[in-house]
Amino acid sequence: MYPATLKRLIEEFERFPGVGHKTAERLAFHVLKSPLEEAMRLSAAIRDVKSLIRPCSVCAMVTEQDPCPICQDPTRDRGLVCVVEQPKDVYAIERGGAYRGVYHVLMGTIALLDGIEAKDLTIRELEERVRAGGVREVILATNPNFDGDATSLYISERLRPLGVTLTRLARGIPAGSTLEYASRAVLEDAIEGRRELKTSGPSA
Amino acid sequence: MYPATLKRLIEEFERFPGVGHKTAERLAFHVLKSPLEEAMRLSAAIRDVKSLIRPCSVCAMVTEQDPCPICQDPTRDRGLVCVVEQPKDVYAIERGGAYRGVYHVLMGTIALLDGIEAKDLTIRELEERVRAGGVREVILATNPNFDGDATSLYISERLRPLGVTLTRLARGIPAGSTLEYASRAVLEDAIEGRRELKTSGPSA
Repeated sequence: MYPATLKRLIEEFERFPGVGHKTAERLAFHVLKSPLEEAMRLSAAIRDVKSLIRPCSVCAMVTEQDPCPICQDPTRDRGLVCVVEQPKDVYAIERGGAYRGVYHVLMGTIALLDGIEAKDLTIRELEERVRAGGVREVILATNPNFDGDATSLYISERLRPLGVTLTRLARGIPAGSTLEYASRAVLEDAIEGRRELKTSGPSA
Repeated sequence: MYPATLKRLIEEFERFPGVGHKTAERLAFHVLKSPLEEAMRLSAAIRDVKSLIRPCSVCAMVTEQDPCPICQDPTRDRGLVCVVEQPKDVYAIERGGAYRGVYHVLMGTIALLDGIEAKDLTIRELEERVRAGGVREVILATNPNFDGDATSLYISERLRPLGVTLTRLARGIPAGSTLEYASRAVLEDAIEGRRELKTSGPSA
């Protein structure tokens, strides 16, 4: 009953994750009502993202230059590679500003139920990168959940024979939270990973 | 820190109603990860919606043909005009399938606080349509809320001198609901609009 073009736009919006039919209708009607220049800018931005952004040939990060600005930065430690699931994770760590190594973006996790296998990720590229030499330590920084843990386990088995140091992010109570609301899994991690307080005499 | 084109796409998505920064990021990353053809289809659909869909010159409904299919349908009663706020409302009534008149789409409501005045809607066009003759009854089917009621009141004052019958949708308890959960406003409407049961002898 909708005009054919409007129906087509609604269907395209429905492909987005977390966007149902009602939301897709709302987005499509917004396009219909918005000023022409605004809609044309959106149309062009979608086209440009696909044509100008590509994966970095070193770390697979999304970038307009190749290698990406982080891989090109001479002040970064190229012997330290932080392996993350998604480009968003790179932005999250970079926002912190403390990390001075480089990255490797897997572009997902192994999720056999969703049909995502190791070969769909950039694991082979990571292996080649380590094999090429110069990498001292690989930090496995996948998300602390089932798929993330399974993916890290798989990668660690692939990289172990190459003699590189493998580490993972610390797990425990998040800073700024309260014990009262921590889940059982968080508390178990916190207890298992407890650290000795090193008191060398009566300092603060 | 995002590549410039990706940042631009996120900003464009942020203009959508109900889309915050996090959602805009999610939508933009979906475009980035989706197959090229899919993204190009979305880009083209946005362009097409703006170039191919226009308001019907009779009723202001969104359409690819002018007049729209409903205004062109010879089986519809052109003497009965249902005035609605949005194109979506036409689809909602058409889904019912019972209405056989035509429509007039206001493209909004009078909302002075948001700077939307009568002249921003298609009220003048409605007045001209009624003045041109052939319209017997105008059903004011704006939403049953403050802005909708105010807009209907304004339109009824503009059309009353033209001698057309003015009606509004019945209000009361929605079919399939329960009295227990009806709001006070709904119950007040239901009591005020009560109808006499016409029992002509002992029928069911």
